[in-house]
This record gives sequence, C-alpha cells and structure tokens, in this order.
Amino acid sequence: MTKNELVARIREQQSFLCVGLDPVLERIPAFLHEMDDPVFEFNRRIIDATKDLCVAYKPNTAFYEALGVKGWESLQKTLDYIPDTHLKIADAKRGDIGNTSKAYAKAFFESLSADALTVAPYMGRDSVEPFLAFPDKWVVLLALTSNAGSGDFQMTTDAAGETLYAKVLRISQEYKDADRLMYVIGATHPDLIGTVRSLAPDHFFLVPGVGAQGGDLEAVAKQGMNKDVGLLVNSSRGIIYAGEGTDFAERARESALTLQKQMAALLSEVN
Amino acid sequence: MTKNELVARIREQQSFLCVGLDPVLERIPAFLHEMDDPVFEFNRRIIDATKDLCVAYKPNTAFYEALGVKGWESLQKTLDYIPDTHLKIADAKRGDIGNTSKAYAKAFFESLSADALTVAPYMGRDSVEPFLAFPDKWVVLLALTSNAGSGDFQMTTDAAGETLYAKVLRISQEYKDADRLMYVIGATHPDLIGTVRSLAPDHFFLVPGVGAQGGDLEAVAKQGMNKDVGLLVNSSRGIIYAGEGTDFAERARESALTLQKQMAALLSEVN
Repeated sequence: MTKNELVARIREQQSFLCVGLDPVLERIPAFLHEMDDPVFEFNRRIIDATKDLCVAYKPNTAFYEALGVKGWESLQKTLDYIPDTHLKIADAKRGDIGNTSKAYAKAFFESLSADALTVAPYMGRDSVEPFLAFPDKWVVLLALTSNAGSGDFQMTTDAAGETLYAKVLRISQEYKDADRLMYVIGATHPDLIGTVRSLAPDHFFLVPGVGAQGGDLEAVAKQGMNKDVGLLVNSSRGIIYAGEGTDFAERARESALTLQKQMAALLSEVN
Repeated sequence: MTKNELVARIREQQSFLCVGLDPVLERIPAFLHEMDDPVFEFNRRIIDATKDLCVAYKPNTAFYEALGVKGWESLQKTLDYIPDTHLKIADAKRGDIGNTSKAYAKAFFESLSADALTVAPYMGRDSVEPFLAFPDKWVVLLALTSNAGSGDFQMTTDAAGETLYAKVLRISQEYKDADRLMYVIGATHPDLIGTVRSLAPDHFFLVPGVGAQGGDLEAVAKQGMNKDVGLLVNSSRGIIYAGEGTDFAERARESALTLQKQMAALLSEVN
C-alpha cells in the first residue's frame, strides 16, 4: 500500500483508526472455543464488524506465538483475511544483525502477507535497512513508546541535549528508503507529540496507548496531525474486549464507532 | 538450568561454546531436502556432532519464522531435541509493553522449551521484568551488539559521560530477579570487553561475533572471563556451514573442536 492510497483511505473512511488484534484465549468468548481455530474465528468476527470504521489492523505477534504452531497458523490466516484495502501491520518489534533482519523481513513480508512491521532501533542502521529494502512495505520504527519504561532509555539526553528518541527520529530519516518509515509514538506522552511532529514532519505515526493505557485522542490529533493526516491511532483491548458474550463483535463495533466519530470530527476540525 | 549447573558444565566440557542454529534452506545440503523436515534434520545432525564440545545452543528465531508455520514446527522440534544438559537459548530479541512481554515469555518458556531468551532493552524496565518473572529461566539482554550499527545509538554518551550500553548494564542490574540476567556483548568490540566486565562483574555474557563477523576469541576470554568463567561464546555460520556436502556434520564438528580446544587452553590459562 502506498502513502497516497493510505491517505485517500483515511479521507474516505473518515477514520485513522488501527484495530489491534491481540487475542488472549482466556478472554475469547466461550462459544468460540468449540471451533477449530478460536483465535481466527474471534479475529474474523472483529474484522467483519469493524472494517468500515478503521484503515488498519495490527496483530501483535506475541499473542500468537504464545499459542505455538497453532498460533502462527492463526496469525497467517488473520493476515490473509484482512482486506487488502486495509494496512496490515505485524506488531513484532523485530531487529537483528543484517542477514538476520533480512530473514525476519522475509518472514513477515513474503511468508506472511504483512504490509508493515514494527522494528526496534537499538541495533542501529544495518538492523533496520534490510526491512526497508522491500518495495511497497513499511517499517514502523519504535521511537517513543507508550509504556512507563519508555522513560528509562528513550528519554536519556546526550551531551548535546538530544534525547535518544529524538536521535532515533533524526538518524533514521537518513536511512535508505526512509520514505517508507513510520514511527511508534505513544499516546501517553501528549505533551511531546508536537515536539515529535516537528522532528519528523512528513512521516506517519502509529500511536498506541489510547484506551486501556490512558492516552488522549484529541491531544494526539491536535498536535500530531500533518497535511497527510499522518496518524494511525491504535486501540486493541478497548475494542476487541468491549464485550465478552456472544455479542462481542457488536460491542467491538460500538467501541470502534465511538472512536471513528471522534476521528471524523477531528479530521474536519484540524485539517 | 541454574548458574551453578552451567558453570559446572563449562568446567566439565572444558568449553564455553554456544552453537548458533541459524538454518537457511539454500545452505542446507541437498540430500536433506528430500526429508520431511530438512531444517530439523540439519539441526539434529549438527547437535549430535557437537554436543560434547559445547554447553549451549542458540537457534535464532528469524530463520525459522522465515519458513512460516513449518519453520515454527522445526524450531519447536529443535529446542526439544537439544539435550537438557545444554542451555537452550532462543535468540529472538523480543520486548514489548508488560502484558505483551508476558505473552512472549509464555511463548518461549512454556509453549517452547527454551531456557533463555534474548531481549531488547529499548522499552525499559517493564518490558524486561515480565521475562525475569519466570523462575529458572534466563534473560539475555542486548547491551553492546556485534554489528556495525551498534555504534549508532548504543555508543551515545549522555550529559554525565555514560554511554547508552553502559546505562543499560547499570540500570538493568537493579531489575527484580536481575541475577538471572545475562548480556549480549559483541566480540567485535575487543577493546571494550574489559570495560563491560567491570560494569557487570558477576553476569554471564553471551558473545556473538567470533568467526564470520571477525571477533577474536582470545581477546574476549582474557578480558571478559570472571571467577565463574562468565562467558558463552557463540559461533553460528563458522560451525554449521563449515561443510556443505554429506559430511557437513563432521566438518561442523571439526570447526567446533578447534574452538573447544582454544577454549580449554584459555580456561586453564586465565583461571
């Protein structure tokens, strides 16, 4: 998916919502457990109920790997089921030495059908560029994450006064094919979204942390939007676990609809 | 596996060698491709041929994920096949927000039979501690990696003069259950191994980069050993691809034997 296609999709759907598909067996409604692949059946119903309200889906690989081989099968089926009109983001936070990052890129971009992959920056340029070498695919680099521990290293200030997350933003924009970079910027740092936008004016941000983690959508939109919108705001637990009975997909839709309406208002207000 | 058991094993085998199991289909000998699971058959023969010469095996998950569901099956079979006398390190470089790191820990420590997992530090304390919460399991935290890009962020010096890798070493030693932390320290920084040892005197280092990446075993041992040896030196491609014909396992054994003999000499010389 190209940037122009993504932006057009956002304008059309009036939404910059990404739905996080993080299935935990214990939280999946009982009636699905009788089926052959409860995780996929859960995801399929969530996707059917929300696809006109969002522009991206983001399965986090951890929840599939926790289920072993069967989980990896569910991940593959889920990525294949997401409509091609939507950005398929594998939230895997990978990154390794060059030949190994290349193997990861093949795993997600060739063996699986992901359009985008989250990548950790700690190992530097040659751990990230192998992912960027895949045309039409996106790398979503961790910059300023949503968790409490984001302060431990990401906020470290160097001798010149630059924080580590700012350095990651600055240096990575020099990588080959950096036009296919997006950044993870947590919604739990609303005071910093404007700063981050000034450091990476043209790139999309994938913003987790709205909902269960407490981030504020309005603050994110008002400080984070650029001329191309430039935001994908993710909600996982707040949507997929909005209900827990046979009507879980309807409850998920209601929760997604609430966010989509807020987003439509923000799109007309800010732009 | 406890630290005492690992140290006893090293003394007994006269080896601190870790064999990296990074199978690439194109490099696996032709005759194995006729079998049902070439990757496992390759690993099984490497393990049989080297287990008396090493104390640990380290499959890197990238090379299994690149093969999809079948690759994850090969990974599971490989981890199950490694003898319980040897440390089973899943080189996965995971790390995410708390509930997600917990899911990854379940994936590798419960669903798979790994004893240890490599973890990336960028997201801070609450991304690492969920892995440390598993008794008898080890977390191998990236500190100073072996690749060229390790200089990009890990060498950044803060206002107080501390490099990022040194900060990772210092702060992580305060984590709950930090006695079950090891650190990834690349052999490609021989001038820094002594510094790193002074910053983490009691912890084991997993040292990649000897062999294909050019690191020097003697320099690593002389500057990196502590009273418990404290080193696991990994070689992947230098061992598993030492040969490419039907005798690949014998060639792998020869390559591992060369390293083991050097290690035996260094163990008696340094300790």
